[in-house]
Amino acid sequence: MTTKAVAMEEIERDNGSFDAAAFSRQALSSSHSLAAVFDHTLLKPQTTREQAIKLCEEAAEHRFACAMVNPAWVSTAHAVLAGSGVPIGTVLGFPLGASLSISKRKEAVELVKLGAHDLDMVLNIGMLKSGMNDRVQQDIRGVVEVAHEAGAIVKVILETCLLNIEEKLRASELAIAAGIDFLKTSTGFSTGGATPEDVAMLRGVAGSRCGVKASGGIRTLADAMAMLEAGANRIGASASVSILRELQQD
Amino acid sequence: MTTKAVAMEEIERDNGSFDAAAFSRQALSSSHSLAAVFDHTLLKPQTTREQAIKLCEEAAEHRFACAMVNPAWVSTAHAVLAGSGVPIGTVLGFPLGASLSISKRKEAVELVKLGAHDLDMVLNIGMLKSGMNDRVQQDIRGVVEVAHEAGAIVKVILETCLLNIEEKLRASELAIAAGIDFLKTSTGFSTGGATPEDVAMLRGVAGSRCGVKASGGIRTLADAMAMLEAGANRIGASASVSILRELQQD
Repeated sequence: MTTKAVAMEEIERDNGSFDAAAFSRQALSSSHSLAAVFDHTLLKPQTTREQAIKLCEEAAEHRFACAMVNPAWVSTAHAVLAGSGVPIGTVLGFPLGASLSISKRKEAVELVKLGAHDLDMVLNIGMLKSGMNDRVQQDIRGVVEVAHEAGAIVKVILETCLLNIEEKLRASELAIAAGIDFLKTSTGFSTGGATPEDVAMLRGVAGSRCGVKASGGIRTLADAMAMLEAGANRIGASASVSILRELQQD
Repeated sequence: MTTKAVAMEEIERDNGSFDAAAFSRQALSSSHSLAAVFDHTLLKPQTTREQAIKLCEEAAEHRFACAMVNPAWVSTAHAVLAGSGVPIGTVLGFPLGASLSISKRKEAVELVKLGAHDLDMVLNIGMLKSGMNDRVQQDIRGVVEVAHEAGAIVKVILETCLLNIEEKLRASELAIAAGIDFLKTSTGFSTGGATPEDVAMLRGVAGSRCGVKASGGIRTLADAMAMLEAGANRIGASASVSILRELQQD
């Protein structure tokens, strides 16, 4: 167990729920602690092999929580990160969430075989809006089963900018009941990214039942601090290296 | 063979290459002819079941070239369109093109089983930019094999707004050599959509070897006419019904 995980467990033991202020203080106490909160991310479709490799090298250098790349670069990432202890993250049904459930599940099988540890999947937004709760949950559970069997984790992206409050709450409960590891706000490819309000709401639903990942539009240390203070315990960003630098210069 | 297909064949027979002016004249000669050029499309992730059904009903009413929905709605579309003669279109690796080749192929297998006829796939843009031509082509060929065996067709989306001229030409040649049925400009989810210049370039490469589909940002009859005159023989749009109405009012 990492220092970070121990710290988080102590925080949770104290009051039975997630203490965002304590977690935030701890995460911001050093650049090493802060790095451990970041999924270092590059998901643009035009990402080249060279850029994917560079992202992984940066993740290894700074000890980010993971290096997050598109599925097509997972085997490349594995070649770079093998033995580094830095996990590989990737995405499923991304960014629309509207592929077949069987495809999400089968892609999860392939991706864990290739070495992926963090699977960030988009839930089926249209089915959520259509009230097809069972289908939404099965879609998630299909991936969770495959991931957990392989020792991988699942983050479910709600794409909060497209949902109303009722939909955000329902999506969160469905995802938690399906056994996910993190609720995640955004893909970064839609009309908006993470907001402190949404993060606070997701944390409110989650309590200490699962993690909360803020993503989309987080470019500065101030952005990151706002997310941590609102209750995030993981942050997705492409600007992770420059955000760490900001902390070091403080 | 439809009247449209016969007309196109005659146009091609005349001069051995695609005659955009003649095709365009024929397509604009009636709202029935124009409808047969349109892939009536709704790919927003928040599309509900009800909206997907409505799209299919409109496609049946106006006899569009196909009703294009996300994979998760293909079985719903099939229930609506069975027996109508209007094909179902859907997307693969959409809109980033960065999923695993094996996932694109396996999803194609599932989708043709569910009744999809038009498979619009995004090529692997990052691998194209990395000069990994064999991988780009294999990615496409894997889908083409599955589709053609099932009597389905494949359109390859280049996402032209992200490519330079050399990349557009190379992508087109790789896709045509992989046996695709249409080159397609755009997903409608990136930084730009179809332009007459890009359509003309794709038609220039394609000649009469395959179709050219213009998509992304086509909202008016004037937009559609510009694409047809530049060499498109298929148009993807959400505004298809209102574009037909514009023609009828002319």
